[in-house]
Amino acid sequence: MNTFGRIFRLTSFGESHGRGIGGIIDGCPPGIEIDLEYIQNELSRRRPGQSKITTQRMEPDKVEFLSGIFEGKSQGTPIAFIVWNKDQHSGDYNNLKDVFRPSHADYTYQKKYGTRDHRGGGRSSARETIARVVAGAIARLVLRKAGVQVFAYVSQVGEIELAKGYQELDLTLTDQSIVRCPDQETAEKMIARIEEAGRDHDTVGGVITGVVRGVPAGWGEPVFNKLHADLGFGMLGINAVKGFEYGSGFSGTRLSGSQHNDIFIKGEEGIKTKTNHSGGIQGGISNGEDIYFRVAFKPIATLLKEQKTVDQYENEVVINPKGRHDPCVLPRAVPIVEAMAALVLADHYLMQQLYTL
Amino acid sequence: MNTFGRIFRLTSFGESHGRGIGGIIDGCPPGIEIDLEYIQNELSRRRPGQSKITTQRMEPDKVEFLSGIFEGKSQGTPIAFIVWNKDQHSGDYNNLKDVFRPSHADYTYQKKYGTRDHRGGGRSSARETIARVVAGAIARLVLRKAGVQVFAYVSQVGEIELAKGYQELDLTLTDQSIVRCPDQETAEKMIARIEEAGRDHDTVGGVITGVVRGVPAGWGEPVFNKLHADLGFGMLGINAVKGFEYGSGFSGTRLSGSQHNDIFIKGEEGIKTKTNHSGGIQGGISNGEDIYFRVAFKPIATLLKEQKTVDQYENEVVINPKGRHDPCVLPRAVPIVEAMAALVLADHYLMQQLYTL
Amino acid sequence: MNTFGRIFRLTSFGESHGRGIGGIIDGCPPGIEIDLEYIQNELSRRRPGQSKITTQRMEPDKVEFLSGIFEGKSQGTPIAFIVWNKDQHSGDYNNLKDVFRPSHADYTYQKKYGTRDHRGGGRSSARETIARVVAGAIARLVLRKAGVQVFAYVSQVGEIELAKGYQELDLTLTDQSIVRCPDQETAEKMIARIEEAGRDHDTVGGVITGVVRGVPAGWGEPVFNKLHADLGFGMLGINAVKGFEYGSGFSGTRLSGSQHNDIFIKGEEGIKTKTNHSGGIQGGISNGEDIYFRVAFKPIATLLKEQKTVDQYENEVVINPKGRHDPCVLPRAVPIVEAMAALVLADHYLMQQLYTL
Amino acid sequence: MNTFGRIFRLTSFGESHGRGIGGIIDGCPPGIEIDLEYIQNELSRRRPGQSKITTQRMEPDKVEFLSGIFEGKSQGTPIAFIVWNKDQHSGDYNNLKDVFRPSHADYTYQKKYGTRDHRGGGRSSARETIARVVAGAIARLVLRKAGVQVFAYVSQVGEIELAKGYQELDLTLTDQSIVRCPDQETAEKMIARIEEAGRDHDTVGGVITGVVRGVPAGWGEPVFNKLHADLGFGMLGINAVKGFEYGSGFSGTRLSGSQHNDIFIKGEEGIKTKTNHSGGIQGGISNGEDIYFRVAFKPIATLLKEQKTVDQYENEVVINPKGRHDPCVLPRAVPIVEAMAALVLADHYLMQQLYTL
Repeated sequence: MNTFGRIFRLTSFGESHGRGIGGIIDGCPPGIEIDLEYIQNELSRRRPGQSKITTQRMEPDKVEFLSGIFEGKSQGTPIAFIVWNKDQHSGDYNNLKDVFRPSHADYTYQKKYGTRDHRGGGRSSARETIARVVAGAIARLVLRKAGVQVFAYVSQVGEIELAKGYQELDLTLTDQSIVRCPDQETAEKMIARIEEAGRDHDTVGGVITGVVRGVPAGWGEPVFNKLHADLGFGMLGINAVKGFEYGSGFSGTRLSGSQHNDIFIKGEEGIKTKTNHSGGIQGGISNGEDIYFRVAFKPIATLLKEQKTVDQYENEVVINPKGRHDPCVLPRAVPIVEAMAALVLADHYLMQQLYTL
Repeated sequence: MNTFGRIFRLTSFGESHGRGIGGIIDGCPPGIEIDLEYIQNELSRRRPGQSKITTQRMEPDKVEFLSGIFEGKSQGTPIAFIVWNKDQHSGDYNNLKDVFRPSHADYTYQKKYGTRDHRGGGRSSARETIARVVAGAIARLVLRKAGVQVFAYVSQVGEIELAKGYQELDLTLTDQSIVRCPDQETAEKMIARIEEAGRDHDTVGGVITGVVRGVPAGWGEPVFNKLHADLGFGMLGINAVKGFEYGSGFSGTRLSGSQHNDIFIKGEEGIKTKTNHSGGIQGGISNGEDIYFRVAFKPIATLLKEQKTVDQYENEVVINPKGRHDPCVLPRAVPIVEAMAALVLADHYLMQQLYTL
Repeated sequence: MNTFGRIFRLTSFGESHGRGIGGIIDGCPPGIEIDLEYIQNELSRRRPGQSKITTQRMEPDKVEFLSGIFEGKSQGTPIAFIVWNKDQHSGDYNNLKDVFRPSHADYTYQKKYGTRDHRGGGRSSARETIARVVAGAIARLVLRKAGVQVFAYVSQVGEIELAKGYQELDLTLTDQSIVRCPDQETAEKMIARIEEAGRDHDTVGGVITGVVRGVPAGWGEPVFNKLHADLGFGMLGINAVKGFEYGSGFSGTRLSGSQHNDIFIKGEEGIKTKTNHSGGIQGGISNGEDIYFRVAFKPIATLLKEQKTVDQYENEVVINPKGRHDPCVLPRAVPIVEAMAALVLADHYLMQQLYTL
Repeated sequence: MNTFGRIFRLTSFGESHGRGIGGIIDGCPPGIEIDLEYIQNELSRRRPGQSKITTQRMEPDKVEFLSGIFEGKSQGTPIAFIVWNKDQHSGDYNNLKDVFRPSHADYTYQKKYGTRDHRGGGRSSARETIARVVAGAIARLVLRKAGVQVFAYVSQVGEIELAKGYQELDLTLTDQSIVRCPDQETAEKMIARIEEAGRDHDTVGGVITGVVRGVPAGWGEPVFNKLHADLGFGMLGINAVKGFEYGSGFSGTRLSGSQHNDIFIKGEEGIKTKTNHSGGIQGGISNGEDIYFRVAFKPIATLLKEQKTVDQYENEVVINPKGRHDPCVLPRAVPIVEAMAALVLADHYLMQQLYTL
């Protein structure tokens, strides 16, 4: 159950302290120009050690393609890739071998599999998302054909919230701040908040907002695989995610129907809606308006401070991890959110080909 | 793309004004006692006309099984069923034939398929959820074997919010109020709010909380099919749902890691957690604690009042629908939320069998 | 595991002595004209009682559509259908309740499920193929868009073999003989052979040849889902089938490579092959030539004569079934072979859409 | 569409002249001892250059595991692996760049994808089967838990046929002959026949027989995924395979039902059948008897002699390939047939877990 997607499918593999992280993309159409620099750049946006507010682990994370590309183009055959693991300090984890760290997957993996690779979380490590970012980058190359653009940015860190809506922001500015918030003033507050958490050996959560532009009306499946259900499924599969909402979301539950309905009007290029509480999706299918959504990330569980817990023999123990960890996962999660959105949309783009013979 | 689940699978069919709504459940293990009365009762909890705050359409909605059951037990073969459509006033929709109702699926279906059954929303009608409730009831019969219980209740209607957490409530009282809120005082306020919306020919949204008890540690898949990702996917596939969160959800984003982490302790029956911000799921896998989540429903789009819109020839029109519609979908959505949760859990229950040879 | 196909998918349901046999077709594109008369006609080609050499059970087998069709056209939504069971003599089977009939599925079902519907074979009955014929007929309506035609005919009954290859036959004559062999002289011998088997209260096997014309070059998947692998999979899933070969098949194993290779030549409408030992498929992908294959059917196991066997308490018993059964399944299996071929081809037709954006 | 299996799933990647061939096995249960020597040995049985009757290309074909194994055991997580390509003479293929070799996949790939990696057949190369042999070896390690053993041997080369049935052979002797026929006398004739083909710069086909012992009654799915349908699907997906039959196969079509039926008797360890025309499978489900089947391989298409053909500009050309190729693929295909059988059986072994809660 390590495959994502129905037509454009990623199957991922790898543990944080194994040989590497990689995957196979199956279902990518032939003839797509595989812009290696672009893909590597997406991966570098995700890697540790990229700024003062991320972990100082240096993982170069260079992707190596193993198949499916010939003379710079996809061949319609499986595209396999790997990012070799380096800079691993597996020894760091020896003292945690039998311990169930609080709010990690140690305990549940042990219960599920009866065994686990304890080194750095094994398969539950967020390093697995490398595979998603690589595949998501290729999905974005496919989506270029349809004129679709995917954006994400940090809209909340702890209690620091970006007050503006996405329409008021210049989303091309996101990467100009190390926290990946396109509003400079808010970005500075967020950075200060993350630095504070780092000083406290603590962590802080937040929210990432995603925006997709250029999706034509008609993508999505009407019943179970509603476009937003697949988007939500993709986002909820990212480590540390606790919630997903799209369009008016939870706050829309307080509106009346007459406030919430998006009135259709005749626009210059066909039918439009006057407002967009629907978040670009109606009845599970895109309506041509911007798609936007919000993804909640909990504060990550790895704290560089003393915590009580138990080990697998049910003994009480105190742990006090050392090492290099992010106090806030959100800046590095932006390319992951974008990647998952791109995977979902590329899948629906291809599925929509099945409706027109 | 009308199939839900990987092992315990529902494929649904039917339009609101066609012959009926039904489905095939494939992957149900043999030997499950099929308690027809229980299933019919679940369906009746969903049907229209059950109280003064739901639509007065009378649809008896009696389920008829077509296969897979012999001498009262599942056979391991596909269980097909249908609920025949009755009390249809298809003629009511003739004047809406070419119109795109605001925030409905009329426009997007037309764009997707190039055709649509305009009568009552066709396949986009919430009547489709009949198939889910029937299949969910059978999933609950399967889950009984594992001692799993699924609950849901209305925790918010418009701005009326239930202040208590689920731990403070007696969830067996939910159906004693017509609004399906187990707290009597709040229930009365909610009913009043819905009646107000009805008088205004308007609608109101809200939140349903789900609680699952008795799931042992170890269910769920670690990467894409995290238990909460599948739950969220199921919920987001329900009509009118705009958001999903589990455990600490969106509000947990404001906590620090040291506040949010659930410390493991040694309980009487093995390892427990002291708090449950994780919502019973860690690393995508159940940890044996209660699973709880919240589902946001928008106010439904069918208003019995004048609204501007356009038709498929891009003419501006004014519609003023008559008929019988719910001012608030939430009371009737409670069994649907329970059904989707049960489908997801039965699927993971079966998947977990694959890990032990 | 009752679903066939990846994009154009049939999920079937039903037992021979339950309420009926039916299915859901998911993935049929919208806008296909659903020619009900054509579909019913295909079904009638399969039904019992159609001639003196088939069982005299009279099952009218009228298909009833439940969803997915509006104003005569497919809607892109699931097409559900049922054929109600009639003329059931369930009582006939009471004395066989605990008996494992030789070479039937009684014993294996009991071992698999721990339970079984003993009446007429339950789900293992060839009545299940009704669902395939209905879905196959719709697949053929889809394939009309691509100009693809599917034929099958009886080429062997017992030791009576049709000497001519398919190229020497007029395949439109197949249904003019009750045995569905387009060569009149051979047909008569086959009929005599079947009548002989019937008089002996015995049964006889044979071979059906399939031919598909008009498939353009490029359909099929190169590795596991080779076009002939999917065809073979479909055929081997038909009751009583024991073997499948395509193109030169088993006899081609005796040729040398220089005899077997199909030389490419320049034809009037592009590239052709001089011979067609490849059976229209190279590397798993259609090459534009005729696709042809052979399907082996064993003599069916239901004999109207005394046979020794054991019951589920391991007692030795003698059975002597009465009733109405086919001495030879092949004439009625012709539309089933055609249906399975059509399902496979429609699936690959749609899959091929995914390669061109 | 490069995934095989439903529960125990192999997704393969790689081209013959790319970086390497590999795959991901998903769904392998945790706790399986991964016997690396055994796996490498299976792979070596498949590799070129192993005897005087196979190609003299020397490909060491050493498998490298990338994930999913920890302390010698499977973890329940994806097992990725690669065999790096070496000894590639890509330049050999430059003169074939635009040519469609007879009975190869060159033409059909070009038509399907609009592009192709022409070097050594790219993805259509039989080198892809490396992934199957590795995954099949792991499947066999899983099947050991159930006591299942998989055998295959060469039973026909050209017109040289092994007269004995598998019951009369000692299947442990298969690898004692380089042609992998357990009967020494026939083996020698086969070797002579292959050497003759080699001298003629020609090729020769044949048949491989498979035998599976120890499968308990109850494996297999009753309708589309009949155990023999999945076996046939697996075999027909192997390069150069033209046919599949199991049990009595094509020759059984000439028997009468009373000759063909396998009478149930009471054996020492429960119910048995007196004969085994059923090939160990009834109604698609194993009955506890030996499973046996035959797989037809055409003579491979790569001839080291002059042949006429056309290129992609529709010019007539003459090719005269040089290089190192097998005159007969069968000896090296034995481990591939075993691997595919093991993959199918491991999948059904796991599926059967879903029937007992």
